[in-house]
Amino acid sequence: MKNILDRNQNKAEEVRTMLKAGKVMMVNIISSPGAGKTTLLERTCEALAGKVRIGVIEGDVTTDRDAQRLKKYNIPIVAINTEGGCHLDSHSISKALEHFDLEHIDLLFVENVGNLICPSQFDLGETFKLAVVSTTEGDDKPAKYPMLFSEARAVILNKTDLMPYTNFSIESFMADMAAINPRITVIRASAIKGDGLQTWLEWLGRQIDEFSAV
Amino acid sequence: MKNILDRNQNKAEEVRTMLKAGKVMMVNIISSPGAGKTTLLERTCEALAGKVRIGVIEGDVTTDRDAQRLKKYNIPIVAINTEGGCHLDSHSISKALEHFDLEHIDLLFVENVGNLICPSQFDLGETFKLAVVSTTEGDDKPAKYPMLFSEARAVILNKTDLMPYTNFSIESFMADMAAINPRITVIRASAIKGDGLQTWLEWLGRQIDEFSAV
Repeated sequence: MKNILDRNQNKAEEVRTMLKAGKVMMVNIISSPGAGKTTLLERTCEALAGKVRIGVIEGDVTTDRDAQRLKKYNIPIVAINTEGGCHLDSHSISKALEHFDLEHIDLLFVENVGNLICPSQFDLGETFKLAVVSTTEGDDKPAKYPMLFSEARAVILNKTDLMPYTNFSIESFMADMAAINPRITVIRASAIKGDGLQTWLEWLGRQIDEFSAV
Repeated sequence: MKNILDRNQNKAEEVRTMLKAGKVMMVNIISSPGAGKTTLLERTCEALAGKVRIGVIEGDVTTDRDAQRLKKYNIPIVAINTEGGCHLDSHSISKALEHFDLEHIDLLFVENVGNLICPSQFDLGETFKLAVVSTTEGDDKPAKYPMLFSEARAVILNKTDLMPYTNFSIESFMADMAAINPRITVIRASAIKGDGLQTWLEWLGRQIDEFSAV
């Protein structure tokens, strides 16, 4: 296992160096199945069309349903089918990158396999990890699955429109998050309704500015 | 990997033989994080108190929050902390079983780690697998994560109380399920509201009867 992680880390550093040279910011999106990663990407592609040149790597254990959902935005998409594998790794990302014309991409999203555990252990060479967690999963998810939340630069707390119908406690969630990762940015959103989207896009814009400036 | 799975399978068969001899039916519950496994167990323990002698093995990557939630039912519980591991295996189950007095247990629930992928690859020696999926995760989960659904004897479609507020299509869900596993029993429920609980308990009762009869 250590060997696998070491080889993954080496390749991730290669990917990171290449993307940095090519001025491509890569965001590794991680969540449970059904937390709303693809819907967030749909809204983001709509909002940034004509402003930011987006590419997407779609990771799935089987099917290309998520990639199909994004085709309408006419952006470059590469689907990685892990054939049962529970996470992406830097080697598959490195191969996927060969299919992009990186000179014409500013922002590359990686939608990882829906899994709150394994993907957080594999550096893909991303600029940062973005966690997505939905209110319907319960407020205890950061405490119960801390690895991702301790590493992510931001977390989208999604499906806030459903919060009134659940026993989700925002106080409990925020207290756990602060204990696990005091520096993380929490953005409350409902990707399906559009709530919080402006906050997300402004925050994302600042990350692009900072990435370009370094 | 094949080696790991082979060793897991051998130990699983040992566990299965032992439980069969001891007349203990073991149910391996698998779902995404936050689909409602623990709440389902809470309702089930309440309903069966004094009727069926229940034990629980709680699998978690960290914390013992779920085990704590079940303590009030005064049943034997063993918590397995996988320390970051993404699934339980038959060796950890075999060790956990040493802490139970199996002569006084009829029904042993294993709440696996919250993960729709990895746990489905590891036979624990269970009598059958039970999938839990919530309506808020979206109707495409069986198609996107077919391994679990192809193996499970039943699936609890949980959080039906939230269905009216989502774009979940029961037709699409049922069509995908039928294609993946025509024999699976689908039980619609809201564990938190109690909807569908009676159907679940009657179905579970029949499984116990059949297990005892063989």
